[in-house]
Amino acid sequence: DLLERPEGLDLGGDLREVTILMSDIRGFTTLCEQLEPTQVVTMLNRYLGAMTDIILAWNGTIDEFIGDAILAVFGAPQGRNDDADRAVQCALAMQAAVDAVNTANAAEGLPALRTAVALNTGTVIAGNIGSERRSKYGFVGHPMNVTSRIEDATGPGEVLAADSTVAALAGRATVAESRELQARGIDEALRVHLVTGYLP
Amino acid sequence: DLLERPEGLDLGGDLREVTILMSDIRGFTTLCEQLEPTQVVTMLNRYLGAMTDIILAWNGTIDEFIGDAILAVFGAPQGRNDDADRAVQCALAMQAAVDAVNTANAAEGLPALRTAVALNTGTVIAGNIGSERRSKYGFVGHPMNVTSRIEDATGPGEVLAADSTVAALAGRATVAESRELQARGIDEALRVHLVTGYLP
Repeated sequence: DLLERPEGLDLGGDLREVTILMSDIRGFTTLCEQLEPTQVVTMLNRYLGAMTDIILAWNGTIDEFIGDAILAVFGAPQGRNDDADRAVQCALAMQAAVDAVNTANAAEGLPALRTAVALNTGTVIAGNIGSERRSKYGFVGHPMNVTSRIEDATGPGEVLAADSTVAALAGRATVAESRELQARGIDEALRVHLVTGYLP
Repeated sequence: DLLERPEGLDLGGDLREVTILMSDIRGFTTLCEQLEPTQVVTMLNRYLGAMTDIILAWNGTIDEFIGDAILAVFGAPQGRNDDADRAVQCALAMQAAVDAVNTANAAEGLPALRTAVALNTGTVIAGNIGSERRSKYGFVGHPMNVTSRIEDATGPGEVLAADSTVAALAGRATVAESRELQARGIDEALRVHLVTGYLP
């Protein structure tokens, strides 16, 4: 009984400095109502397949697909000096790759997708989360929630990054515009930046 | 495990009438900042272990753990006539079981958890979602988003159910109070009910 023996799992629970990437397809639930279920799954999987390849190529760790949303982390289980740099380049590559996904969709008479990508850097707790019957390597902490709030404020086609991520890039991110967010459930105002390029 | 080896199912993307259950621990990220990482993971896994046992006992399908949140569905991959009934009973059992989790936590000097459980019934697209490199049996559609909005409005210790879920129970749910939600990103006002009991 896990209630009595939670130590039955290899718990871990480490603090990790990571850059969190969250993306979603704008208006996806409207598409769900306009298309056949098989078309929806075809579109979604074509998109998720392309994004998975990019995230893994940049050595990101995919935490979850949540419907049409992707949650990935750079810096865990293994941290590197360029975690934030790879996350930003990955986010830009993901936005660039949506065009190819849309070309493939158009060939089947399917509509174009627009996606939003949010980035945030901070310290989270990483560990094997769940129960003996079902567990996964996952992440908890305030920076995860903040990323979700930034994602809510990200426009279609945009890569929006928290101050923390842009600071970690020390000028290597091209920022087109900066905004202040007053996010639900977060006390302090959140400064975010529209990232349009990366200069190594 | 049907979820881990979904190739036995028809995975093209099916419409399914399901009752969606979403729960989370209120103020969990604040706990993350006040406790040691191993304490956080111990608490979280003790809670998730207890909830997993309850959800599986009521024949719910766990879609995801997302940090401290649980997303589960009743009615897929296999639908039954009593999907909404089992979801409501499961939600009430989950809230009742938090006391036992808190007793175990208190014995280790850990704080008490309060959780919120939201329910919503509707038609979603169910299928094998992801890429060749990573996929899972998952769900997309408007009712998933609506459940998340109800969850945002659920107070600690509460089970808050959409009109659709309470209607499916045809009087078998005890409703203490009803509310109107004007949820972000949802056009129509949403009528929700505080469920406090179940009468078979």
